Amino acid sequence: EGYPILHGEGEDEAFGIEDCRVAFIEDTYYLTFTAVSSHGVGVGMRTTKDWKTFEKHGMIIPPHNKDCAIFEEKINGMFYALHRPSSVDLGGNYIWIAQSPDGIHWGQNKCIVKTRKDKWDSKRVGAGAAPIRTAKGWLAIYHGANENHEYCLGAFLMDLNDPIKVIAQTDGPIMKPQEKYELEGFFGQVVFTNGHIINGDELTIYYGAADEFVCAAKLSINEILAQLSAVRK
Amino acid sequence: EGYPILHGEGEDEAFGIEDCRVAFIEDTYYLTFTAVSSHGVGVGMRTTKDWKTFEKHGMIIPPHNKDCAIFEEKINGMFYALHRPSSVDLGGNYIWIAQSPDGIHWGQNKCIVKTRKDKWDSKRVGAGAAPIRTAKGWLAIYHGANENHEYCLGAFLMDLNDPIKVIAQTDGPIMKPQEKYELEGFFGQVVFTNGHIINGDELTIYYGAADEFVCAAKLSINEILAQLSAVRK
Repeated sequence: EGYPILHGEGEDEAFGIEDCRVAFIEDTYYLTFTAVSSHGVGVGMRTTKDWKTFEKHGMIIPPHNKDCAIFEEKINGMFYALHRPSSVDLGGNYIWIAQSPDGIHWGQNKCIVKTRKDKWDSKRVGAGAAPIRTAKGWLAIYHGANENHEYCLGAFLMDLNDPIKVIAQTDGPIMKPQEKYELEGFFGQVVFTNGHIINGDELTIYYGAADEFVCAAKLSINEILAQLSAVRK
Repeated sequence: EGYPILHGEGEDEAFGIEDCRVAFIEDTYYLTFTAVSSHGVGVGMRTTKDWKTFEKHGMIIPPHNKDCAIFEEKINGMFYALHRPSSVDLGGNYIWIAQSPDGIHWGQNKCIVKTRKDKWDSKRVGAGAAPIRTAKGWLAIYHGANENHEYCLGAFLMDLNDPIKVIAQTDGPIMKPQEKYELEGFFGQVVFTNGHIINGDELTIYYGAADEFVCAAKLSINEILAQLSAVRK
């Protein structure tokens, strides 16, 4: 009751806002979402403390960009976020990391996870919800898709003190579309997440199935960590 | 003597750095350039006070982005820059503006100048050198190209206190390829600038002709201002 519906506002959100991630840092919720308009597709941000009043911070990352997940702790005094630019020629649909002194202005962009040829994540990768702090590092759940637009979920691990360093990544997916409601729908063969709840070792992933249904799946964080393989640089 | 040659360094500049703009703010030169690698094409930045030692600030704007020109004064305490994202689907090759508290981390991205159908700048637009302070507003020289990849120069004017507001723009180009060395070469039919010197009303534009020759042209700032038409919002 009294909680407003969030919708696109202004020129740069004219076609809407979507795929919102929420990061809770100190006393503030940071909402990052895809802002869509004829100007392009970028990452918009609003913040709130009470889900009743929201402060707008404009487009924090310019086009073409999606899948922005802010870390829920500052690291060495800086905010960190994963994001996903798309390139018109060189480059691809890769996961990048950026830093910010205030959560609003971002820089030090670095490419950290690329698509992998001939694997399930050969065409595009993008972060899910806020990375999860574990004893071994920051664990990110991400979506990957192949040339046939089959979307699965995988995971990678970043250094706790310097998340630009990717330590490990799952070789195969940790979750893939297999139920009827995941295989058939508005956009079939898709599991896609941008929210979760952590309760000890139990990770409840909220995910979209076939771009049509909202589902939940419970996974063990330790079992995900056990599936990671070291990344060699 | 003793001035180093700048070249690409590290993974995100593996294929080189190009099209450098220089903005002089307080006692520091801000060099923004296109950083090119297999990760994508974005805007890198280095600063210097003496052109002998340079500080690296990584990629300030992620792919796909070029043509970043920082304003040579802070406005209401903030740095401003023009930049040019390219979009894979919605959007295009438009000029955007961003703000920064420190010149290193950027946000509040806004689309301010778009390509114009059936005109000389129908396919792509991008900022030239740092915008020029005039009594009427910030004057930006920009390049525009049409579907035939003919690159000309035009100008637009931004509000002095709030450069997100574009006040006026030239309808036609202020300079177009017409000499033999502009029409024929490595990439013919191109005039492209990212540097100039201002001396009172005299603007000396340094420009690349046909991606092969470096030329200079003298223009009158007042004559450019006289060619602007008001932009209606």
